[in-house]
Amino acid sequence: MTSSQATQVQTLRWCGGQLEMIDQRVLPAEFKYLRYDSAEAVARGIRDMVVRGAPAIGCAAAYGVALEALRLRDAPASQFAGLMERAFEVLAASRPTAVNLFWALQRMRARRDALAARPVAAQADALLAEAHEILAEDIRVNRAMGEHGAALLADGARVLTHCNAGALATAGHGTALGVIRSAVEAGKRISVIADETRPFLQGARLTAWEMVQERIPVTLITDNMAGFLMSRGEIDAVVVGTDRVAANGDVANKIGTYMVAVLAQRHRIPFYVACPISTIDMSIADGAAIPIEERAPEEVTGFRDCRWAADGVSVRNPAFDVTPAELVTALITERGVVRQPNRERLAALTARR
Amino acid sequence: MTSSQATQVQTLRWCGGQLEMIDQRVLPAEFKYLRYDSAEAVARGIRDMVVRGAPAIGCAAAYGVALEALRLRDAPASQFAGLMERAFEVLAASRPTAVNLFWALQRMRARRDALAARPVAAQADALLAEAHEILAEDIRVNRAMGEHGAALLADGARVLTHCNAGALATAGHGTALGVIRSAVEAGKRISVIADETRPFLQGARLTAWEMVQERIPVTLITDNMAGFLMSRGEIDAVVVGTDRVAANGDVANKIGTYMVAVLAQRHRIPFYVACPISTIDMSIADGAAIPIEERAPEEVTGFRDCRWAADGVSVRNPAFDVTPAELVTALITERGVVRQPNRERLAALTARR
Repeated sequence: MTSSQATQVQTLRWCGGQLEMIDQRVLPAEFKYLRYDSAEAVARGIRDMVVRGAPAIGCAAAYGVALEALRLRDAPASQFAGLMERAFEVLAASRPTAVNLFWALQRMRARRDALAARPVAAQADALLAEAHEILAEDIRVNRAMGEHGAALLADGARVLTHCNAGALATAGHGTALGVIRSAVEAGKRISVIADETRPFLQGARLTAWEMVQERIPVTLITDNMAGFLMSRGEIDAVVVGTDRVAANGDVANKIGTYMVAVLAQRHRIPFYVACPISTIDMSIADGAAIPIEERAPEEVTGFRDCRWAADGVSVRNPAFDVTPAELVTALITERGVVRQPNRERLAALTARR
Repeated sequence: MTSSQATQVQTLRWCGGQLEMIDQRVLPAEFKYLRYDSAEAVARGIRDMVVRGAPAIGCAAAYGVALEALRLRDAPASQFAGLMERAFEVLAASRPTAVNLFWALQRMRARRDALAARPVAAQADALLAEAHEILAEDIRVNRAMGEHGAALLADGARVLTHCNAGALATAGHGTALGVIRSAVEAGKRISVIADETRPFLQGARLTAWEMVQERIPVTLITDNMAGFLMSRGEIDAVVVGTDRVAANGDVANKIGTYMVAVLAQRHRIPFYVACPISTIDMSIADGAAIPIEERAPEEVTGFRDCRWAADGVSVRNPAFDVTPAELVTALITERGVVRQPNRERLAALTARR
């Protein structure tokens, strides 16, 4: 598969009046789509991590709203609003950290509100069209981020990434991996170092898979090896995605990102965050206010059916951490690169329309 | 099991004229001993990580020498020296990083040299006695380190440790976990946060198991969560073991230790290294000269029979990293605590007899 073909990996697709999502829990051993026909089913898919990655979660939630509206297409107008409200709530409760979920729901809600006087069927059709538009827009945004970010990577750069901020985390192309893809498309020789990203192993399973598909050289390490490679001068840049950026530039991302950022600073390695504007949450002053999801202990005591931890041990499983803005060399957005992000710069960036 | 009973976990034991070692690859699901009757078999056990942890490897190597001498008990004196030389070589080639291996072999060699004029059988008996003494000494040393180190931990301290520097990494009591055990025995309430320590999962499997056995509260995290807990003020101290300390105080230890040390410095959390004098290698100027073992890729692409990484990915698997002395708050040795270790302090420490 060439690089441009690989952007055809469709994390989510609309097919036969239903949403289909790649089951990311079983990749790379199995590549299969699961089908969704209701908001509740989509919410479960998000919670169980069939789909993950902030932008992809946003798209999934938008389709969840659309699916529910289509299910209620023949419902009386008097019931439609209340039932849709329930769908919004179920989707909003699926995962707490990624702001794209709430951003997408807010956008779908605004669309519905604007159409409230129209017949139910017309509202449903318009909500599906809006979900399609959110998905298409995500790919356009990733392409634009990719072009801005590619300029930051030198020919020959060895780029560390954490978790999966690739095509699978978005509607396509990816945020952090989109930057890498765009650099490769621009003719640069880039090699990727992928943190395996315990406990869910998105790096080992998803990032490695995406890069192998496209023949972009990729080396897998465990999360605790990044410091070693940096100390040996074997990392030139770090590019990661994000689940929510606070108004001051603090970055929530997959657990372990903060450790990479601290090490990058020590070794004077640039630390870039690929961040669509939809991931910036100006309503939250700083990272301390970003809710951090804690997930089930079973994710830490083993993986899938493989158990290895000693019985009786307690477990912590925060799914995200917060990297303070001071450690971020630049945010890469679809509107350009924001160096040393802070409140003023993010306010100016998000005010532009 | 109480704390003092648990020190009866015998990582290595001499039984029926053979060496028995707990198979640490299958803990905690299975607790079983494997038997060894030759230097070559012991070398394989070290390489395959049936036994691991620098002090335990040193003890195993000493018994490997003794076993070989006992096998050759009836050999003509003219052949004994050459065959023993081969045994020393095989054992020395088993793993490169832990200096205790070479320290123990050197000590056994010195003993043999001192006895070279004696009959072969007498040499063999003396070498077995020396191996027993190395093992007994290791436990005494760990007890002494424990007492010195325990004074550094406050009542109620939440102590992060990486890998397993416990009874299983030594002849008993442990180095880092020995410090924790001694603090608990002194009546302090200590809780342990255990990094799972990919790829071999010594934290999840061995440290958690040791602590659960003794009812010392232990919480398991993935390696990438330490920074999050530190940023939340949930870690009061770090105590780790070491495989080799260079003359300037640089510390080689299990991969990931360096990342923990960098984070501890950022959060002003004391970073202690429990280090028997036998682990200090004054012949190596600094950490850059410590050989770092790279192990098989299969350790990173999965665990045991469980495979998860994408096919076709490259892998790095350095088993250790180096923490510069500037990040070490103190070395805890059997001769006392050495704050801000440097060349002068280590020279003074190791010169004492």
